[in-house]
Amino acid sequence: MSGYRRQAEISLRLLRASPFWQQTLAVQEGLDDPTAAMILDTAAAFAESELAGLGPISDQVACRVESGRVITPEAYKPAWKALRDGGWIGLDLPQSAGGQGLPLALQTASQMLLDRHSLAFGMLAGSTRSGAFVLDAFAPADIQAEWLPRLVTGEWSTTICISEPDAGSDVGRIRTRAEQVAGSWQITGQKCWISYGDHDLTSRIGHLLLARTAPVELGTRGLSLFLVPDSTPTSRRNGITVERIEEKLGLHGSPTCVLSFNGAEAILLGELNRGLPQLFVMIERMRLLTAGMGSATAIAALDVAEHYVVERRQGGAPHQPPVPIIDHADVQRQIGRLAARAWITHAFVLELAAIMDRAETATGGEKEDLQALAAWLLPIAKNFGAETGFDSASAAIQVLGGAGYTTEWPVERLLRDSRILSIFEGTTAMQAMDLLYRRLWKEEGRGFKVFAGLLRQEASTASEDVGAAALQVLAQLEEITLAFSEMQSDPRATDYATDAFFRATWAGIMAWIGLRLARFATDPRDDLDRYLGAVGECGLHEAQAEIAAAAARIRGPGHAMQEIAALLKGR
Amino acid sequence: MSGYRRQAEISLRLLRASPFWQQTLAVQEGLDDPTAAMILDTAAAFAESELAGLGPISDQVACRVESGRVITPEAYKPAWKALRDGGWIGLDLPQSAGGQGLPLALQTASQMLLDRHSLAFGMLAGSTRSGAFVLDAFAPADIQAEWLPRLVTGEWSTTICISEPDAGSDVGRIRTRAEQVAGSWQITGQKCWISYGDHDLTSRIGHLLLARTAPVELGTRGLSLFLVPDSTPTSRRNGITVERIEEKLGLHGSPTCVLSFNGAEAILLGELNRGLPQLFVMIERMRLLTAGMGSATAIAALDVAEHYVVERRQGGAPHQPPVPIIDHADVQRQIGRLAARAWITHAFVLELAAIMDRAETATGGEKEDLQALAAWLLPIAKNFGAETGFDSASAAIQVLGGAGYTTEWPVERLLRDSRILSIFEGTTAMQAMDLLYRRLWKEEGRGFKVFAGLLRQEASTASEDVGAAALQVLAQLEEITLAFSEMQSDPRATDYATDAFFRATWAGIMAWIGLRLARFATDPRDDLDRYLGAVGECGLHEAQAEIAAAAARIRGPGHAMQEIAALLKGR
Repeated sequence: MSGYRRQAEISLRLLRASPFWQQTLAVQEGLDDPTAAMILDTAAAFAESELAGLGPISDQVACRVESGRVITPEAYKPAWKALRDGGWIGLDLPQSAGGQGLPLALQTASQMLLDRHSLAFGMLAGSTRSGAFVLDAFAPADIQAEWLPRLVTGEWSTTICISEPDAGSDVGRIRTRAEQVAGSWQITGQKCWISYGDHDLTSRIGHLLLARTAPVELGTRGLSLFLVPDSTPTSRRNGITVERIEEKLGLHGSPTCVLSFNGAEAILLGELNRGLPQLFVMIERMRLLTAGMGSATAIAALDVAEHYVVERRQGGAPHQPPVPIIDHADVQRQIGRLAARAWITHAFVLELAAIMDRAETATGGEKEDLQALAAWLLPIAKNFGAETGFDSASAAIQVLGGAGYTTEWPVERLLRDSRILSIFEGTTAMQAMDLLYRRLWKEEGRGFKVFAGLLRQEASTASEDVGAAALQVLAQLEEITLAFSEMQSDPRATDYATDAFFRATWAGIMAWIGLRLARFATDPRDDLDRYLGAVGECGLHEAQAEIAAAAARIRGPGHAMQEIAALLKGR
Repeated sequence: MSGYRRQAEISLRLLRASPFWQQTLAVQEGLDDPTAAMILDTAAAFAESELAGLGPISDQVACRVESGRVITPEAYKPAWKALRDGGWIGLDLPQSAGGQGLPLALQTASQMLLDRHSLAFGMLAGSTRSGAFVLDAFAPADIQAEWLPRLVTGEWSTTICISEPDAGSDVGRIRTRAEQVAGSWQITGQKCWISYGDHDLTSRIGHLLLARTAPVELGTRGLSLFLVPDSTPTSRRNGITVERIEEKLGLHGSPTCVLSFNGAEAILLGELNRGLPQLFVMIERMRLLTAGMGSATAIAALDVAEHYVVERRQGGAPHQPPVPIIDHADVQRQIGRLAARAWITHAFVLELAAIMDRAETATGGEKEDLQALAAWLLPIAKNFGAETGFDSASAAIQVLGGAGYTTEWPVERLLRDSRILSIFEGTTAMQAMDLLYRRLWKEEGRGFKVFAGLLRQEASTASEDVGAAALQVLAQLEEITLAFSEMQSDPRATDYATDAFFRATWAGIMAWIGLRLARFATDPRDDLDRYLGAVGECGLHEAQAEIAAAAARIRGPGHAMQEIAALLKGR
């Protein structure tokens, strides 16, 4: 079984073990387990045959600017056509918008296959699909009719334009302005870090852009959301200039653009000055997507490492043939840890998608609970999916040794490509603050309580040692959360500890999902179940180490950090 | 003060705070504090003016093979000349060998300045200097007279040739053979991962090579050490072919060669079949050098981050100008952690060098104690110097955000260059096993006892809270060490836990050096003392988190790891 098929099979088993997925299957017409299996199998075959080769190509060929327009690698054209023809862009878009209306969990499982070795290529489909959701929610009917069918089929595409040179994480300082001139909106300003801000794969590009429509003093409450097409009926180019593309550590095949808008014509989406909250429809999907990209990278790196350790022979008694390096205890430890973190991330991202699906169809208090749960889990998934991708690539390099440091193996590319994941779509610090200030305090930890309930329930039916290990991590997490809530009176101390708290919540997730995986060993039907069971047990161990480190970090030397800051400013 | 000067000044203060350095100063004729200060100041100025620019150049230009020989970037030639003229290669080589006979600590401090932004370039001087030590110890007198003066002045250079395609960490499987033909030795076989295995910077290259002189069944006890010049009096090329240079993630400016030896003439060094233990003269120096390379990278990355956070403005009240990002608590936390780990690594590497110096001049039981201490500390320094370099580069990228991911900033290059450091000169696993099996068990932890005594002594004269924090980490480490010694009866369990034990010892180092740094705050004379004091306090906090995680990892799920291994083999 290839690594792609294996991943598809594991995704399917994980979905089957998810109560939320079961509920979705029960209510979704026309979808059953065999259909889901077929879709994932098709995704695996498609990703392996059409996309796997794009990673190295796009890394070496990269994108370039010619006559003011971005040219993508030649190999992208047939791949994009295949992606369009396969219907992969609109998998989970509503049928009313021309999509297939399949659950997000199925889209997420497919995307984690598609992205394994071609993150850079995959990003265009990601932003186009997410953009279509925004238009579906907020665009005027005529715009929807014009754009949605063409986005779903990949004839046109969309980008997301938020950042500016002086407004990165600090969105409230956006200065790009929108003005009404003779009844139509015009955009003027500069946007940066725009993935696929320009390219030659679709005949039209729509920029979903935040611009200022009220004074800067109003911060994010003075921003509106616009659709800015790159061309208009009267002009080949709608007052938009590609200033440059960034030279980056990785993702060479994803053109990261700086765009200047000079009175570009635009269409207002939704309500005036409600741009940021509206854009969260897209941002939330992009964050889940980023989590999936990290997970895809982790599994790809793990797959390389797992094959290498069986094939590569070194060591053993000198008068005997060398043994596969997986026979060495420390290699087993490295693989155990790598597999635990990679699969836990994978299973977690899938589970979050399944929860989001169920939150759509549930009602009343259950719906609110699941929405709160999803909001609690999303920043954790975004960040630790991202970090697991990068860390797994690095761990795989270590497993391969010198070979892993060369370009003959793909792990060094996975390392480079994935380093951005904990920065874009909201940095680690932004996610941690979202979790603490909004989810824990403002929403009084509703999502966390639902999470704790879920973990307790699963632990109660697990084998004793496995359940106890997970519950112990949860108890430590609850202790930390309580200590944290008591620290509200000392804002600076909580600010310093936000990251440690964030990592503690990740330990909680690892315990929860580790427990879920470990249960595959209870009554294993085959080797894959046994594998998942052993991986889950390793995951519980990782959770214990993670929470121990986080607990030790909660009360940091704030005054020393402040002193360093003051001294650096005074230099 | 530039980052280079600042580093030189901090190195000097750290040396002054080292009891071992004080003892060396007391016995070394012609060396005093002002002389040391002058040397470090010169090194800083030289590194900044002549070498700092080489990093980006060598990354972009890289090395190439032309007509079977390796061509280095053009900018290397004047830099190599300046390095030679400045006398930097032979700083700590004995005066009898043409060197300046200065302490290793001073060489190490200088090297950490020279390497900050030019690891790739610096590696040639590193292997040449280390090779000269080997020749000084084991070469016949005529070879010494021919080679040493030319190595010290950088007219000639040396490499270290150990690895083969099927013998990496498993040195005992080396198959390259040496045979005596008409009274002279001839080498036949292939060697790989040879840094500067060929280049155009010196007129002659001597390969220090391990070859088999007794049956493979004897493992490492059948290996002898040879000097294999790349050219002989009768031939421009001594039966050596450059098969290729590796394409790598980083260190593009350091040619990593695969070399074939076809009956190449060689000179036996030292005793037959004692090659590996003899080569340890070189390997030990290369490991300390690697620790220094990691430290240099960490400080370079920290320096970029420290400047960025003061200059880059984001956030703060919307109606006020944006604030320097160092005002944000989480940025302070990131910088505090980065600074703590970078400077602790720096101070630790320096201290180890000072201990090695003192071990040279001490006598009797003190000498043995210090030799055991150095042997205990070296694997820790090698590995955690390496890891800190890479982790610091990654942490600096996070501080810079999207900017750090672009090639406009040097941190992405530092990340790529440093990833190899925990692989070459002995992987993490090899270092961990050395520490556990040789230092802790075979030598009955003599080095660890000396270390614990040192830490206790320093803690006894420190302020109460700082001393208590360090002692608490030591107590946890001693507990882990004890538990570990009791696990000797279960070899497999200890094998799995070796890495966790290794990380626990690093926590002990962080506590020791954190304590040392924190003391600068006791009676600070200026802002630099205050900075070091605050950094030390952050370091103690890092030590506490590190030991907590390590303790939680000691008893890992060995059976689950074994199960995964068995399933992977059975696929």
